[in-house]
Amino acid sequence: MTEPDSPAGPRMRAWMEKAFPICRSISGDGVRRTLDLLETALPSGVTLERTGVPSGTEVFDWTINDEWNVREAWIAGPDGGRVADLAAHTLHLVSYSTPVHTQLPLDELLPHLHSLPEHPDWIPYRTSYYHRDWGFCLPHSHLEALPPGDYEVFVDSTLEPGELVYGEVVLPGRSADEVVISSHVCHPSLANDNLSGLAVSLELIDRISRLEERRFTYRFLFAPGTIGSLAWLSRQGDRLSRIRHGLVLTGLGGGGPLVYKQTRRGDRLVDEAAAHVVLARGGEVRRYSPYGYDERQFNAVGFDLPVGRLTRTPHGEYPEYHTSADNLAFVGDAELEEAVRAIVEVVEVLEGDRTFVNLSPYGEPQLGRRGLYPTMGGKSASDEVMAMLWTLGYSDGETSLLRIAQESGLPFADVHRAAMALAGADLLGPVADEADIR
Amino acid sequence: MTEPDSPAGPRMRAWMEKAFPICRSISGDGVRRTLDLLETALPSGVTLERTGVPSGTEVFDWTINDEWNVREAWIAGPDGGRVADLAAHTLHLVSYSTPVHTQLPLDELLPHLHSLPEHPDWIPYRTSYYHRDWGFCLPHSHLEALPPGDYEVFVDSTLEPGELVYGEVVLPGRSADEVVISSHVCHPSLANDNLSGLAVSLELIDRISRLEERRFTYRFLFAPGTIGSLAWLSRQGDRLSRIRHGLVLTGLGGGGPLVYKQTRRGDRLVDEAAAHVVLARGGEVRRYSPYGYDERQFNAVGFDLPVGRLTRTPHGEYPEYHTSADNLAFVGDAELEEAVRAIVEVVEVLEGDRTFVNLSPYGEPQLGRRGLYPTMGGKSASDEVMAMLWTLGYSDGETSLLRIAQESGLPFADVHRAAMALAGADLLGPVADEADIR
Amino acid sequence: MTEPDSPAGPRMRAWMEKAFPICRSISGDGVRRTLDLLETALPSGVTLERTGVPSGTEVFDWTINDEWNVREAWIAGPDGGRVADLAAHTLHLVSYSTPVHTQLPLDELLPHLHSLPEHPDWIPYRTSYYHRDWGFCLPHSHLEALPPGDYEVFVDSTLEPGELVYGEVVLPGRSADEVVISSHVCHPSLANDNLSGLAVSLELIDRISRLEERRFTYRFLFAPGTIGSLAWLSRQGDRLSRIRHGLVLTGLGGGGPLVYKQTRRGDRLVDEAAAHVVLARGGEVRRYSPYGYDERQFNAVGFDLPVGRLTRTPHGEYPEYHTSADNLAFVGDAELEEAVRAIVEVVEVLEGDRTFVNLSPYGEPQLGRRGLYPTMGGKSASDEVMAMLWTLGYSDGETSLLRIAQESGLPFADVHRAAMALAGADLLGPVADEADIR
Repeated sequence: MTEPDSPAGPRMRAWMEKAFPICRSISGDGVRRTLDLLETALPSGVTLERTGVPSGTEVFDWTINDEWNVREAWIAGPDGGRVADLAAHTLHLVSYSTPVHTQLPLDELLPHLHSLPEHPDWIPYRTSYYHRDWGFCLPHSHLEALPPGDYEVFVDSTLEPGELVYGEVVLPGRSADEVVISSHVCHPSLANDNLSGLAVSLELIDRISRLEERRFTYRFLFAPGTIGSLAWLSRQGDRLSRIRHGLVLTGLGGGGPLVYKQTRRGDRLVDEAAAHVVLARGGEVRRYSPYGYDERQFNAVGFDLPVGRLTRTPHGEYPEYHTSADNLAFVGDAELEEAVRAIVEVVEVLEGDRTFVNLSPYGEPQLGRRGLYPTMGGKSASDEVMAMLWTLGYSDGETSLLRIAQESGLPFADVHRAAMALAGADLLGPVADEADIR
Repeated sequence: MTEPDSPAGPRMRAWMEKAFPICRSISGDGVRRTLDLLETALPSGVTLERTGVPSGTEVFDWTINDEWNVREAWIAGPDGGRVADLAAHTLHLVSYSTPVHTQLPLDELLPHLHSLPEHPDWIPYRTSYYHRDWGFCLPHSHLEALPPGDYEVFVDSTLEPGELVYGEVVLPGRSADEVVISSHVCHPSLANDNLSGLAVSLELIDRISRLEERRFTYRFLFAPGTIGSLAWLSRQGDRLSRIRHGLVLTGLGGGGPLVYKQTRRGDRLVDEAAAHVVLARGGEVRRYSPYGYDERQFNAVGFDLPVGRLTRTPHGEYPEYHTSADNLAFVGDAELEEAVRAIVEVVEVLEGDRTFVNLSPYGEPQLGRRGLYPTMGGKSASDEVMAMLWTLGYSDGETSLLRIAQESGLPFADVHRAAMALAGADLLGPVADEADIR
Repeated sequence: MTEPDSPAGPRMRAWMEKAFPICRSISGDGVRRTLDLLETALPSGVTLERTGVPSGTEVFDWTINDEWNVREAWIAGPDGGRVADLAAHTLHLVSYSTPVHTQLPLDELLPHLHSLPEHPDWIPYRTSYYHRDWGFCLPHSHLEALPPGDYEVFVDSTLEPGELVYGEVVLPGRSADEVVISSHVCHPSLANDNLSGLAVSLELIDRISRLEERRFTYRFLFAPGTIGSLAWLSRQGDRLSRIRHGLVLTGLGGGGPLVYKQTRRGDRLVDEAAAHVVLARGGEVRRYSPYGYDERQFNAVGFDLPVGRLTRTPHGEYPEYHTSADNLAFVGDAELEEAVRAIVEVVEVLEGDRTFVNLSPYGEPQLGRRGLYPTMGGKSASDEVMAMLWTLGYSDGETSLLRIAQESGLPFADVHRAAMALAGADLLGPVADEADIR
């Protein structure tokens, strides 16, 4: 794939800066405004389609909640000063807080306040989606310093029938078979979790939209976590069988190497493709566990979809996770750019993996007379020759190019290039049509 | 399982102290007296059944030997003092020594004497079951100091048609399918090998007899090594097909971590259950080898039974093995108690392992409205929640709770508890009835 | 197998000394003279059969080249002195150099000269089989010192229709199924690559010809690399299906441990046999790669033959490879002798591997009454007893002696000896006739 004209890191950062202040949750205008921002950044000709699922709709074991919106939320101290204010940081307010306007003494306020004693300067992120309550989050140092006295609490929120909204961007390919790339869109002012996933997705849309041709259809899903992906899943019906590969993207801008989390089965093509790419980049591959992001919905027993997850250091393993320290300074341009490159490489494997049959299988063909081998013998073989020998030597109609890359230790791109050269010299022929690709 | 009232370690030790002085062999009154001691220690309502197999009976490739009994055996030196005396230690006499009363000079006596030059203060354990001979064992330091002169040898033994005796304790369960727990009963005054196995078995009988209900029938076998287990096997016929799981117990009170030796096939449920328990306790799992205790009979090609073995440091790997240094001081109460706990855990896996099917398989069910999930979101999940997520996430009708425990790294007991909670909330349903359990 | 009378190392060295000066290539009299030398060294009654394949013959994707012969080749410097002379070292001339007699200045000569800057005193080995050209190789220190001026170049070679010649030695066995042992015969004065393979093959012919009986037919192939083995393969037709096992031998006299390179599939019996032998000798087993010697032809997708390769440090991994430093001093007698011993051990596995069924499968048979077990019990088992217990314990009609050796960690020879003793005592019976051997 060709590189776009301007550098990707600053472009992704500029988008995240616009999206950071928005108060997102699993429903409400924050999601709509974020989808607006995504839409604005799409390449020309590419569109974002929105779906609204009304409150009260049953979604498998769940029911779509009332829509939550908030205009203002603060606590004023005995001296009238603001102790916590949504306008200062969206994390100050527990997500889905019910409306309240009251005065109450410190000891009655305290049960509604949340802080992190181990990180006294950070604001934690808390939600109460399905238990009607209100609450505020603030730095533990501030909480400890609160004087006795009466506090005024004001939350101007609404919890009313509305809808849950998600967005989709589709890049059609030769086949209706799909690669699904999903990023949750519900978290408020947290940069790594998950503005990084959204920004990387935007960049991928740009790159993949420019491919001369696409073997697969690519579907980017921007939905609220858990309930949003379940709502999307509930509306797919038989179309789920079109999902051939998938990735959940999140936490790609923080520190640490790339970490690929396998599908539940662990032996899908996306698992092998991602392992090939991520391990070559010094990253890590982990087995599936039923905890994390929306991969747990896609991999649920009833769906069993081939959807892995790519992050850097996973949730819960870095202290900034779900705190105000997961801010724009916490994510790095280089990290985001490498994540884009790695996913593009995974896409190249998914697009380019084929199984060939050696058309000159009785011993090695004479590469030299086809200009594919050096004329002077006696020296060791070049990488290019080795890629051809591996591809010829294993193209038995059963072994895919990706398997050959894994077996040889060569990058997939080298094996693919060799296969194209050999196919051009009529030394390899196709064995599998699109329908046969696993 | 509930803990019994008094501490197990001292109780096991008290029993071993009574059994230690008895001169046991593969036949004779020593075995009968040991079975008496076992019977006395059984919980009320539990009985020990004895079987006698007459001398001369053919048992597969073997023939039951004459019964051996000995009343007195000693060597007196030139000065009349006792050089070795069965009354002082049962190991002084080679087991199955023929009767003799003679005088002979030192050089003719020496071929009948056995010692351990590398451990000059210990008496070795020697037998001559199938080659008619007599012999004595003594510390090498004593042997070295024997003066020239005439020695009087007296062995008042009998080798006459009689019977080989073994005992069985059966604790019936819902199913006639059996778990067999076997401990050899033929070794004389050796504490780890195998009073430890007998004492642990007694304790297990106590614990398992108190279970509210048992899925399996438990059969405890107390038989002389090799020929005794073969005699038992020869009388089972079709009943052998009822043996679903089994363990040979020996050497559980000496030093070192728990060591589980797999069945010959190495992939039986008892192998996985024992590995799960033993590895979590810092123990070791070893592949099968056709040398050791009665597991070699149970695993013989013609029987191929799923019977593993639990020990601490195995036979031959500790210097005290088969010497007078394997005495009551060599075994520890804490070691015996841990062995009991570990086997109880294995039994809990065998009893509790099931395969469930997720009844709410389309994404994660909403645990919160069932009171199974914390109301405040944003924090990491508790161990209890994780056990439920793993159980839901893998209960596809094929993956057993033990597999889920292995995959998740959680203790079986936690996964089992989560499964019971989920089944109580109608989120899991049964897939396998008793007949389907592998 | 019995050891021959005189020491093998000096015998192999003496042969290599005769063969070293010959100017070999993929065709021509050098190959014929080398086959003559091999023939002379064969044991009496054993013959070498030659096959000539005419130039122009199509061999799969290749065409047999014109035959190349050279009588004289040198470069004289401006002062008339010889800069490089075939008579001094066969490596001086690029193999398949076209005839030339000309005078030319240094700058026009230089493109025809080859050297190794990193090893300035060594002459490299270069070929130009399929690209008509001439060239010389010389030490880089000499090349650097060439003065300006006119040089006389003389190559008295012929490239004319002729034939490619290969030789075969066949030692018939009970079965027409074959073990193929192949060594390339095309390299000029290089000792490790491949006089070592030829000398070891000669020694193996001697050893295997003396076997009292052979289960397999052994075919030793002495062919030029690549095109020679392809020519041989092209003339086999259905006889290829008779090849049950095979080895390519080369590079056995240089340094480093034995290195076995697996067949492409990696799970053939020769892979397991060679791994068993080579690992026990501290050697190394590597996966297949489609680069190297003639194993790449035998393992090509269309042939897929079970042919592995044995070397010490493989080609390209030692600096002396394909240079004048691969001389007779570079190979060691002890290394060659160990290679012979190792291959003889592999042959012993291939000849001796069988699958037996335990005829006394219900528990352990009573070895003692057959004189196969010590009469005095209580001690640990001897290696001999252990080999019998392993063989009995795993001879279920499916597990071969080699598998038992691998599982037990015992040498194959010990397990085989135990099996013979047990079969002699009617405790083991045959399960597989020759036709069943994989």
